[in-house]
Amino acid sequence: MNGAVELPLGEPELAFRAAGDTHVRRSVLPSGIRVLSEQVPGSRSATIGFWVAVGSRDEHPAESGNPATFGSTHFLEHLLFKGTETRSALDIAVSFDAVGGEHNAVTAKEYTCYYAKVQDRDLPMAIEVLADMFTSSVLDPDDFESERRVILEELAMAGDDPADVANERFFEAVLGTHPLARPIGGDPETIGVATRDAVLEHYRASYRPRDLVVTAAGAVDHDALVAGLSAALETAGWELSETAAPVDRRPAELALVDGRSALTVVERPGEQVNLVLGVPGLVATDERRAVLSVLNTVFGGGMSSRLFQQVRERRGLAYAVYSFAPGYSDAGVFGMYAGCAPKNAATVAALMRTELERLAHHGVTDDELSRAIGYLGGASALALEDSDTRMSRLGRAELALGEFADLDEALRRVGRVTADDVRALAGELADRPFSLVAVGPVDEHAFRSIVDQPDTRPDVA
Amino acid sequence: MNGAVELPLGEPELAFRAAGDTHVRRSVLPSGIRVLSEQVPGSRSATIGFWVAVGSRDEHPAESGNPATFGSTHFLEHLLFKGTETRSALDIAVSFDAVGGEHNAVTAKEYTCYYAKVQDRDLPMAIEVLADMFTSSVLDPDDFESERRVILEELAMAGDDPADVANERFFEAVLGTHPLARPIGGDPETIGVATRDAVLEHYRASYRPRDLVVTAAGAVDHDALVAGLSAALETAGWELSETAAPVDRRPAELALVDGRSALTVVERPGEQVNLVLGVPGLVATDERRAVLSVLNTVFGGGMSSRLFQQVRERRGLAYAVYSFAPGYSDAGVFGMYAGCAPKNAATVAALMRTELERLAHHGVTDDELSRAIGYLGGASALALEDSDTRMSRLGRAELALGEFADLDEALRRVGRVTADDVRALAGELADRPFSLVAVGPVDEHAFRSIVDQPDTRPDVA
Repeated sequence: MNGAVELPLGEPELAFRAAGDTHVRRSVLPSGIRVLSEQVPGSRSATIGFWVAVGSRDEHPAESGNPATFGSTHFLEHLLFKGTETRSALDIAVSFDAVGGEHNAVTAKEYTCYYAKVQDRDLPMAIEVLADMFTSSVLDPDDFESERRVILEELAMAGDDPADVANERFFEAVLGTHPLARPIGGDPETIGVATRDAVLEHYRASYRPRDLVVTAAGAVDHDALVAGLSAALETAGWELSETAAPVDRRPAELALVDGRSALTVVERPGEQVNLVLGVPGLVATDERRAVLSVLNTVFGGGMSSRLFQQVRERRGLAYAVYSFAPGYSDAGVFGMYAGCAPKNAATVAALMRTELERLAHHGVTDDELSRAIGYLGGASALALEDSDTRMSRLGRAELALGEFADLDEALRRVGRVTADDVRALAGELADRPFSLVAVGPVDEHAFRSIVDQPDTRPDVA
Repeated sequence: MNGAVELPLGEPELAFRAAGDTHVRRSVLPSGIRVLSEQVPGSRSATIGFWVAVGSRDEHPAESGNPATFGSTHFLEHLLFKGTETRSALDIAVSFDAVGGEHNAVTAKEYTCYYAKVQDRDLPMAIEVLADMFTSSVLDPDDFESERRVILEELAMAGDDPADVANERFFEAVLGTHPLARPIGGDPETIGVATRDAVLEHYRASYRPRDLVVTAAGAVDHDALVAGLSAALETAGWELSETAAPVDRRPAELALVDGRSALTVVERPGEQVNLVLGVPGLVATDERRAVLSVLNTVFGGGMSSRLFQQVRERRGLAYAVYSFAPGYSDAGVFGMYAGCAPKNAATVAALMRTELERLAHHGVTDDELSRAIGYLGGASALALEDSDTRMSRLGRAELALGEFADLDEALRRVGRVTADDVRALAGELADRPFSLVAVGPVDEHAFRSIVDQPDTRPDVA
């Protein structure tokens, strides 16, 4: 089989051809565990990830009584490295360090993923250790307090990064009260009041067999992966004989974002103003994702893009300038970033907004369209050389998209995008409520004329 | 041939076996151009770099009359993207963007490298465009002024990153008046007074055939590379019939660093204090580089390292904590980094210094030694999957080391390291003048007891 394939949840196994010569297989175990693999011929290493579809958007205020309080999903992710019934934190670290493997985790807005990249011979070890961490973390009370301090340092580090701050505030500005608007790690206050009992309850409720998705790419044999994973989970104490269906995928309906224009200025010392501007975007499963990829490439995706040329090459107003367009299950954002001198901040912000309007009115040239299509094809081919990228694509296919599009099919969709499609989408985006965030030595009066009737959000920083 | 091979400068060609099944070849063209390639069977992409052994250390104050003024090497690197006799800045960007290639450059303390990563079919294009940029940049006066503003923004961005600031100040603290101590990009003042005439003169003096080293790895055929490169350079206007020997490698004698202890505190607002502590290290060609790799791995190289365990795992005092040990032709540094709460800064600094002294007195365990050896082997094997890494290793071999050690030989050297070697080197490092840099909301009194008789450098930030 070829092209895009709906992944039928609950179906025992499905095999289909994927990018290049690789072979993607998917199994659903009786316990509800899903396993997806992509074997890359000739590869001598593998990347494996253990995923759950739980992220910061699934969290609640402490007073709600829900154990998944703000920041607790990221807190839990940290704790899984602190030890199990049979492995100390040092044991876990030594397992990967002794073979030079990479080993980390990421908490996102809609998922959490624990992953490792190792040489082929070390894949059984990686499966065993990740399975143990995933199933058997002890969440020791002393470790809980120590890790609370580590997370507060992580938040402080991000707080000292003005681009990080601007990005977080941008999601809040555009998505308002939507759960995707909240920062992933919580804040010092919510981390300060998190309790071990609640995080433990969150762990038990969210890390069940039916929640688990394992994806692997590179030097991986699917049958051996399924067998090794099952054995490792059972050794770690999981009872896999109970039958269950995997959890349902998160509903993919577009939520109503409370579409107001917002102006957020976080005034603080520094040499630059970090600007993030933009509008609500598209959901991850929107059929116009390919159009948006082309639009984002032409607009702010490389050194030949409109933003780079207008802001940096022609005017020398910024060093870093680009656009971005992440999509989630029921919301998305389309944003532009630039870091610039305070005296130029209003000019740069106005210029970026004008460029979006110009794209909406005049569309893209044929040259730009074909260049963007070439860009997306070439960049994807290079990215797929890494097993990390393939492992992530499988997880995203299973958790967010419900289909796996091989490279050929993905590029066919991009190749069908027309200049009219791009202009229509740009027009739609340019008409949405426009928000602006500025972090640095600047005050909000500079931007009043750029954001229409803004809902100025209080600066809580 | 196998193992480490002295690269005889001026010898027409040398072939030897490299990591895995790859094949490394080196040619010296009559004009003095050096070409090194590593063909990786089965690879569908390639990374190519154009190098010169000119970096920030080769710069001088404006009043010296030398055209390579502080920051001008990095300035020149930016200008090479701005256009040639036959290609505009947009043309250059479009060439790579249209095929989804990666395309960038790096200015370092001892070299500058322009590179591209592309699919195999696009390698001839990459050679042509890079050759044109390297030989035929016009350094247009208007572009010069516009790019001056871009570089000032780049410096401002780095100035807003407290870890960047701490790292730059650390080199100044440890290396004092040595040319390697200076920051790579210059500062706003030196960039402000740079002139187009001087940068043009610097370009003409430093980018001659005898300066050029081209390295490529991945899907690359050596003979085709040499032929394509020669043709591209001649098309761009270079006269290659003149015979010349390559420039001599930079002398690798250890310079006398003015070994004083220094305490540098850059007091500024923020949530964390960024600490960098350490001592003068080893030169790049020191025969104890393998010992230092093992030492650095045990001490601060991974989650099982001493620093990670003592500072983060046991005490929760930092999120990011690690050590580093870069070596240059005639100097090096050994440093430790941590970002922590202001109230813990003195504790963390003292703890890190104590850990170095503990390593000096008690050495490493057999477990730690064998784990570090496993770490270096595994991490190298994973890193060599990327043609980027292989391309960089070839450049470093030619410019800095004068030999190319294949993976097997490199690991043999690491495998011969003993616990006594590590302890002896740790003892030597711990006895060297110790410097400390802190950037954040803290004052110098906190650290007086940690640095012995410090030479407090003025805060010029």
